[in-house]
Amino acid sequence: MKIAQIAPLWLSLPPKTFGGTELVVYNLSEELVKRGHQVTVFASGDSKVSAKLISVWSRHLIKEKINGKVIPWNNAHFPLLNIYEAFSRADEFDIIHVHENSSILSGFFIDLIKTPVVTTLHDPFIKQENKDKWATFNKFKKHNYVSISNTHQKSARLKLNFVGNVYNGIDLEKYKFQEKIKKDYLVWLGRIYPNKGVAEAIKIAKKTNKKIILAGNIAKNSPASYNYFEQKIKPQFKKGKVEYVGEVNLSQKNKLLKNAFAFLNPIQWEEPFGMVMIEAMACGTPVIAFKRGAVSEIIKHDKTGFIVKNEKEIAGAVKKIDKIKRQDCRKHVEENFSTEKMVMEYEKIYKKLIKKKKL
Amino acid sequence: MKIAQIAPLWLSLPPKTFGGTELVVYNLSEELVKRGHQVTVFASGDSKVSAKLISVWSRHLIKEKINGKVIPWNNAHFPLLNIYEAFSRADEFDIIHVHENSSILSGFFIDLIKTPVVTTLHDPFIKQENKDKWATFNKFKKHNYVSISNTHQKSARLKLNFVGNVYNGIDLEKYKFQEKIKKDYLVWLGRIYPNKGVAEAIKIAKKTNKKIILAGNIAKNSPASYNYFEQKIKPQFKKGKVEYVGEVNLSQKNKLLKNAFAFLNPIQWEEPFGMVMIEAMACGTPVIAFKRGAVSEIIKHDKTGFIVKNEKEIAGAVKKIDKIKRQDCRKHVEENFSTEKMVMEYEKIYKKLIKKKKL
Repeated sequence: MKIAQIAPLWLSLPPKTFGGTELVVYNLSEELVKRGHQVTVFASGDSKVSAKLISVWSRHLIKEKINGKVIPWNNAHFPLLNIYEAFSRADEFDIIHVHENSSILSGFFIDLIKTPVVTTLHDPFIKQENKDKWATFNKFKKHNYVSISNTHQKSARLKLNFVGNVYNGIDLEKYKFQEKIKKDYLVWLGRIYPNKGVAEAIKIAKKTNKKIILAGNIAKNSPASYNYFEQKIKPQFKKGKVEYVGEVNLSQKNKLLKNAFAFLNPIQWEEPFGMVMIEAMACGTPVIAFKRGAVSEIIKHDKTGFIVKNEKEIAGAVKKIDKIKRQDCRKHVEENFSTEKMVMEYEKIYKKLIKKKKL
Repeated sequence: MKIAQIAPLWLSLPPKTFGGTELVVYNLSEELVKRGHQVTVFASGDSKVSAKLISVWSRHLIKEKINGKVIPWNNAHFPLLNIYEAFSRADEFDIIHVHENSSILSGFFIDLIKTPVVTTLHDPFIKQENKDKWATFNKFKKHNYVSISNTHQKSARLKLNFVGNVYNGIDLEKYKFQEKIKKDYLVWLGRIYPNKGVAEAIKIAKKTNKKIILAGNIAKNSPASYNYFEQKIKPQFKKGKVEYVGEVNLSQKNKLLKNAFAFLNPIQWEEPFGMVMIEAMACGTPVIAFKRGAVSEIIKHDKTGFIVKNEKEIAGAVKKIDKIKRQDCRKHVEENFSTEKMVMEYEKIYKKLIKKKKL
């Protein structure tokens, strides 16, 4: 198949330290190439992919500046340039796969071209109060959508035309499994943001008298992220107890995750997936998380970690973490969240949509 | 001809108090209907036009809120919904006329449809530092553009495909000419903004010992506008000397303009046109303005006002304002800036583009 993948431009492919959606698009594209498809990736010019790369901008946008200012998340021109580049070449592809957040700017182009298009929604669904985006989704609800968890799909408040649900997958070769752990610490890793539960993770570590290591990026173009870090997180740092190691690359991430005895994920929102949980389990590290968003679909309770309802229950979960076999965590990811699994699911969807078009 | 007009959604048509672009689109559409064309206007649902009205949103956006907040100028979804509505019906029209600021979001759709499209640019040209918008213009420089003054066209830093220059026009029946003035005051009217020269107009009034009346809107979704008003303008109010009457509707505007002995326009930027200058002259009021932007194309120096270089020259101009025949001001607008003139120019452009397409 001739497949176009439209990635966000915020980070290069593969992302160096963090990046949920960009990592998924990278894994997907690499595996599709491996399987013999002709893949074209529309991504930032500093990306390194096995597919053919087409770039409307040479650098990824997260550190790019306009008039000395970081680019705001709602910037429309860059994503539109990227989307347009792919859609104006629509005839070259059997299928166009767009990866969108809640802006679905690609929606405006889908009915103007003939090539079938599938849109994976990587963000939680917007609320009706977001009038402009709501009206956009409402206008384009018949397009082909894919959710990243069943919880995510069910949470859509508009009757969108879902053609499937595909869990994000990771390249298991890049995550080192470790049976016996050397160090005795809890770990939290992610984008520093109030709804990610960083402050709650610290609280739990203190309560259970364990050391916690935090890692992840502070989004400079998000005051909510920056202020949260400065006001709520930084003041709690204490050597040997609460440590922050900044952003981590893949090798650092492996080291950090595989040596932890549990990954804490006390999320404060309905996260549609949660890449970091599968990364932790791939290293053999069990996950303790609040029962919100897609957590119940990702963690097998009592088998690969614990799904809990409140902070009180977490303390108990930390104590019985030894019951979890680290091998089970790895196996669970291998069976359910591998790139191969993800790609097979997407291939099925592509075929279905191409066939439907030809009828 | 079957003509689509795509207006901004910020104000309803006709705008009640202010609104450059919306007023131009309104005047243009009304006159095209009068001339027997089948006109469809894409504008806010609270617009009142003689043409067929299609609206993606029931209310105009300037007072609309999302999550309790005013809508930022860079909001893309609302204009995209409006543009999309017209472009997805492209087959119904002989020509689509888009009215754009510097975002040219319509550019992304033009090559995907067959109907010819012409884009009037109502804003000054962006600089290369505005990377995303610059890249967009660069991508779409072959589209059909119309400038609103020759100065405006010449200021384009990219070789855009200009198919013409058309001055904005006003409906002269709506502006009452007054030969003899009753009151002895200077007037400034416009959007309260630093580059519009409000503070400079006050300074000139003080220097020449004249009363000045200010009118116009403060943009609540622009901190630059609001802070400028609060810090630089408001503290200077003085009954009988410097008065501010807020936003004015057409009847109030007429009264205010026709009774003034001069309109001051000490602009601090390269304004591409300047609707308020033709409105003032239509009422018989001469204009004193700085030689910037399109001023030299709008005012006939020594005949309908004075074009000056600095504040010192303005004082002299105020003193010799009696030399200007108010009748000449009116006549100048009748001959050059009427809706009829504007519409004839656009009709020529429409015909040329439709013919070109058919060859």
